[in-house]
Amino acid sequence: MSSLLESIAKVRRDVCDLHAELTRYELVVWTAGNVSGRIPGHDLMVIKPSGVSYDQLTPELMVVTDLYGTPVRGMNTGSAGTVDWGNPELSPSSDTAAHAYVYRHMPEVGGVVHTHSTYATAWAARGEEIPCVLTMMGDEFGGPIPVGPFALIGDDSIGQGIVETLKNSNSPAVLMQNHGPFTIGKSAREAVKAAVMCEEVARTVHISRQLGEPLPIDQAKIESLYKRYQNVYGR
Amino acid sequence: MSSLLESIAKVRRDVCDLHAELTRYELVVWTAGNVSGRIPGHDLMVIKPSGVSYDQLTPELMVVTDLYGTPVRGMNTGSAGTVDWGNPELSPSSDTAAHAYVYRHMPEVGGVVHTHSTYATAWAARGEEIPCVLTMMGDEFGGPIPVGPFALIGDDSIGQGIVETLKNSNSPAVLMQNHGPFTIGKSAREAVKAAVMCEEVARTVHISRQLGEPLPIDQAKIESLYKRYQNVYGR
Amino acid sequence: MSSLLESIAKVRRDVCDLHAELTRYELVVWTAGNVSGRIPGHDLMVIKPSGVSYDQLTPELMVVTDLYGTPVRGMNTGSAGTVDWGNPELSPSSDTAAHAYVYRHMPEVGGVVHTHSTYATAWAARGEEIPCVLTMMGDEFGGPIPVGPFALIGDDSIGQGIVETLKNSNSPAVLMQNHGPFTIGKSAREAVKAAVMCEEVARTVHISRQLGEPLPIDQAKIESLYKRYQNVYGR
Amino acid sequence: MSSLLESIAKVRRDVCDLHAELTRYELVVWTAGNVSGRIPGHDLMVIKPSGVSYDQLTPELMVVTDLYGTPVRGMNTGSAGTVDWGNPELSPSSDTAAHAYVYRHMPEVGGVVHTHSTYATAWAARGEEIPCVLTMMGDEFGGPIPVGPFALIGDDSIGQGIVETLKNSNSPAVLMQNHGPFTIGKSAREAVKAAVMCEEVARTVHISRQLGEPLPIDQAKIESLYKRYQNVYGR
Repeated sequence: MSSLLESIAKVRRDVCDLHAELTRYELVVWTAGNVSGRIPGHDLMVIKPSGVSYDQLTPELMVVTDLYGTPVRGMNTGSAGTVDWGNPELSPSSDTAAHAYVYRHMPEVGGVVHTHSTYATAWAARGEEIPCVLTMMGDEFGGPIPVGPFALIGDDSIGQGIVETLKNSNSPAVLMQNHGPFTIGKSAREAVKAAVMCEEVARTVHISRQLGEPLPIDQAKIESLYKRYQNVYGR
Repeated sequence: MSSLLESIAKVRRDVCDLHAELTRYELVVWTAGNVSGRIPGHDLMVIKPSGVSYDQLTPELMVVTDLYGTPVRGMNTGSAGTVDWGNPELSPSSDTAAHAYVYRHMPEVGGVVHTHSTYATAWAARGEEIPCVLTMMGDEFGGPIPVGPFALIGDDSIGQGIVETLKNSNSPAVLMQNHGPFTIGKSAREAVKAAVMCEEVARTVHISRQLGEPLPIDQAKIESLYKRYQNVYGR
Repeated sequence: MSSLLESIAKVRRDVCDLHAELTRYELVVWTAGNVSGRIPGHDLMVIKPSGVSYDQLTPELMVVTDLYGTPVRGMNTGSAGTVDWGNPELSPSSDTAAHAYVYRHMPEVGGVVHTHSTYATAWAARGEEIPCVLTMMGDEFGGPIPVGPFALIGDDSIGQGIVETLKNSNSPAVLMQNHGPFTIGKSAREAVKAAVMCEEVARTVHISRQLGEPLPIDQAKIESLYKRYQNVYGR
Repeated sequence: MSSLLESIAKVRRDVCDLHAELTRYELVVWTAGNVSGRIPGHDLMVIKPSGVSYDQLTPELMVVTDLYGTPVRGMNTGSAGTVDWGNPELSPSSDTAAHAYVYRHMPEVGGVVHTHSTYATAWAARGEEIPCVLTMMGDEFGGPIPVGPFALIGDDSIGQGIVETLKNSNSPAVLMQNHGPFTIGKSAREAVKAAVMCEEVARTVHISRQLGEPLPIDQAKIESLYKRYQNVYGR
């Protein structure tokens, strides 16, 4: 139990700190984006609380939930329990159900990120995938960044759309139609990296297409870039 | 009287501090944007002084006016009055008449914000409403962001244009033609949030439309998003 | 002489500090932009040294020149002269001749700014004036922002182009063709404000025109905005 | 040997510090860009380590390699060797082979920079050179910024493409097709300046072309600008 508490404390810190990358790269405004991380070896996750500004986040404010998005309360009593989670005044992010669905159905995923980053969301609003016309896209995404279905919040529709789209793709990012990107990774940090790179390539390819058509890259060369990069960075 | 002074002191602080969100999200340059807040239960408001840089604002420099935009002077004499308002060297923002008109005619409004934020103003210059093609727009604005009439500064024309446009809309933001956005909220903080989100969706929809047409969202789904969001955030 | 030294010291500080506004509003990269100020009542000016980074500027590094751009050396000897100007290792900005020409031919000008700010320079590269389609443009510029001729550095061509263009315009900003904006003001601070507002309206009108034509504003209304604004801010 | 160690220590510091310019001007995200510098008079270079965030860089983490990109280990033993290079846990940037090729084939080059800066990469994705339509482009680049071939990472293809393209151009920047810019300079600082200016002109010319065609500048005038500028700044 002590090691679970330590593990939760670590993931709380990581998830909290990683939100600073969302603001650093201007992927979010106000409170509109969130990072979560799985507690390794347990059916638990840690996610941003709803409605709290990024500069007020602390590890203690992160919310621990089960993999159905229900906050876990009352676990941390006793002398070992110095972490005060399950803050009764804070709800988990309103996107928690989508994160939780991903953890339930993709056991290899250790972190999930959702933003409304400008350029990725602009592609999502047209329902248009981002073509793989940059070597850094080949490296990171191994092909186009796909579009997921339009889905309303409130049930598992968003989660299902994410999982079904990503299962058929090299890409760790999906553009949910009219909504915005969700990204995954082995860790919360990898998912944040994917969110940063997703916006970067969404912006660069958008700008390139404003004045003509970007040159395509052969599929074989994309595969080559992707395999090499995934080996080098050990994923 | 003491509680009025405390209330004024609190609104001064809030209004002053909220200007930092305008610069943080780059909604304003130089001195071209302003926040105001109503003094609850009184026919008074607090607004940015004219021509003062954002990094020189202090709560003491905020100007207290009546709801016709006239600065209130000489109220804070005597031992209870440690707040030095009615600074005779400072005028309220040149947009004060428009803010004041809104408070007189929309009693539910507790805060007003005006900026010339780039993308919202770009839509305003074409006199074109922003279509509701993002789920976050459904959440926050419950439909398109409407355009108000062209109006010159100097009388109640701007205020009237704001109120008439917003009375017929879910949106807390209006794009005044050739001018820029005005936003409202239950509190000054809510009005600032609306200003931030208005620019965010103005930018994202603009960028999306640069390379094609964003996919529309059914009106029924927009209503569903809006109702849910307004309930969750208790407005 | 002591009051001249004090005046020079003050203008050095002002000119030095105002460069921070150029970086704050991202009007410049590396060392590509400069502010100057006239020494009131004397045929002297103060300008940024050539090739020095913005974060290394100090008042002492600013260069004092006559109104032909020649650095003034050896003036500050003796007990009264604690200011070490005429630093023999520093040259004035390579744009000094253009600034100096403006001071010689426009006695009402107290400050000049030159940048290559992105959007203003983009209009300059097409040789296209910025139409007055925003109320804040009416306020600040009283009409379109005009284009000046293509001119090579090395003689008075740039200065002449600036002065001839601005003499026939309400605008304190001119877009020198294929080059970038120069702005003027009663003080260096006013010239910096004009540079900031010039880029702001260049960007907003550009973005507005990307998706259609901005609505024109009647000339009479532009005049009304301009007159009112110039009165309010006492220029 | 002591002077070699001092020289390496200096280049480590310079190369490390210069990465701050890449983030300051937003030329890079995450870890996707790198600076290197030649050790004067030796077949050695210093380059960013692979996969390390910009805000965690220290001079000690920079990697010293030979001019084939192989890290040099075990050199710094003994009392003179206080610099701990050849950190066995760090690999040099995955772009090291391209940098090394440039140093081997262009002896006048003292620094190399690679980024995926947005606008330069957007031109690169279309395989389109940036036309010289700005006086500052004439100054810095002496003509258009050329495009290099598509080349996969893994051998000398990228380095060859850079060298062959730059040998035939005044420009210190080349846009590698579908990839991004590489820039060179007499020093690492000059190469960073070229990277900053490359993105600046890529952005400005892009934006100018969005609403029409920029006016061309006569080749003779471009030559004149270039010669003058290279003389003034002593290159």
